[in-house]
Amino acid sequence: MPIDPDATTEVVGFCNVPDFAKGHVRDLRVRWALEEIGRSYRTTLFDALAKRTPEHAARQPFGQVPVLNDGKIELFETGAILLYLGEQDERLLPRAADARWNATSWLIAALNSVEPAVMQYVWISLFNANKDWAKDAKPDALGFVGQRLKRLSDALGDKDWLAGRFSIADIVMVTVLRNLSEEVLGQHAGIAEYVARGMKRPAFQRALADQMSQFVGQKEGADA
Amino acid sequence: MPIDPDATTEVVGFCNVPDFAKGHVRDLRVRWALEEIGRSYRTTLFDALAKRTPEHAARQPFGQVPVLNDGKIELFETGAILLYLGEQDERLLPRAADARWNATSWLIAALNSVEPAVMQYVWISLFNANKDWAKDAKPDALGFVGQRLKRLSDALGDKDWLAGRFSIADIVMVTVLRNLSEEVLGQHAGIAEYVARGMKRPAFQRALADQMSQFVGQKEGADA
Repeated sequence: MPIDPDATTEVVGFCNVPDFAKGHVRDLRVRWALEEIGRSYRTTLFDALAKRTPEHAARQPFGQVPVLNDGKIELFETGAILLYLGEQDERLLPRAADARWNATSWLIAALNSVEPAVMQYVWISLFNANKDWAKDAKPDALGFVGQRLKRLSDALGDKDWLAGRFSIADIVMVTVLRNLSEEVLGQHAGIAEYVARGMKRPAFQRALADQMSQFVGQKEGADA
Repeated sequence: MPIDPDATTEVVGFCNVPDFAKGHVRDLRVRWALEEIGRSYRTTLFDALAKRTPEHAARQPFGQVPVLNDGKIELFETGAILLYLGEQDERLLPRAADARWNATSWLIAALNSVEPAVMQYVWISLFNANKDWAKDAKPDALGFVGQRLKRLSDALGDKDWLAGRFSIADIVMVTVLRNLSEEVLGQHAGIAEYVARGMKRPAFQRALADQMSQFVGQKEGADA
């Protein structure tokens, strides 16, 4: 259990979010990475349902999470935090230049080529579900996601992980893809299996349980 | 003029795109970075209007550009390429740890917090402009962009550049924001000026002219 109130490493997350976001807040990615390397952290939690505080705005310009502070550096944006942790531990990011930059390419692909298509679909089909236009826009948004999944499936082939071995690229890609239903994921060879493979890792399971346990009103020991 | 057919560094771009994309293709970001440090490069150009070739798919899994190859490493995704070039030249990414990770946070913010909102607006208002739903979706998409621009404006304050001094974060943020009209940009203090400041840099001007000069059917010396 690496949540430790006395740890030097601090992760900023949320203590309160809409129900559909629980278990999907992005500090999950940083918790997952820290679990993979067994590094303890303490948490500072803001309330996503309350007005953004000046303290929060000062630490994350877009009022999002996570932020990481390890006593030496404070940084924001999941991608940056994962690169920072990756440089410190080979289990997250290989040292050899070609493997390192291949994993970095895939990390950025997850953030900039796949996540925008997935989140656009979520923005339309979930956040704007009550709008008249959303029903009509959904097939086009799903078509765009499908195109990206098809190419991801081709590129993954029979590899277990994007860059050959597990890396921060998989932490982002798996957490991006699990926003989609099994029905959507299942349409492209290997993708649902890839997501399941990531979610089966003990470090992911612990990170998810720990995020879930810290929401306001969460029952002690409740199942995530 | 750093385009040099004999250069070791290779940038993969497009020789043919729809008219609205000309001057906005993402290899512009890599050309810009290379211009800032005066490094020559040769180009390999695929046709975005033709069927994706196996050669292209092998080099960029999503059929996009750019790809960079410097004779040692081949990598894809603008963000990864800019980080790679940044590590090699302090003019693109500061060396001191706190400054380096602040610029990296902003680079990722441009790619993952601002670009998705901007591209979603472009996807709705430009790529799907002929769909019935798009007209109704546009205000919501613009509202989402406006929220991000407001917070960007607050964070930028009276700084010239995101991380205090010019860096790869500005290369991405400026090229992301210039997809929006001056009317949209002008609604948030300092944003239009920030974009203009970036576009005034001689390295940006040269990169843009060079991208424009390489499209099929482009007139020799035509104004970009």
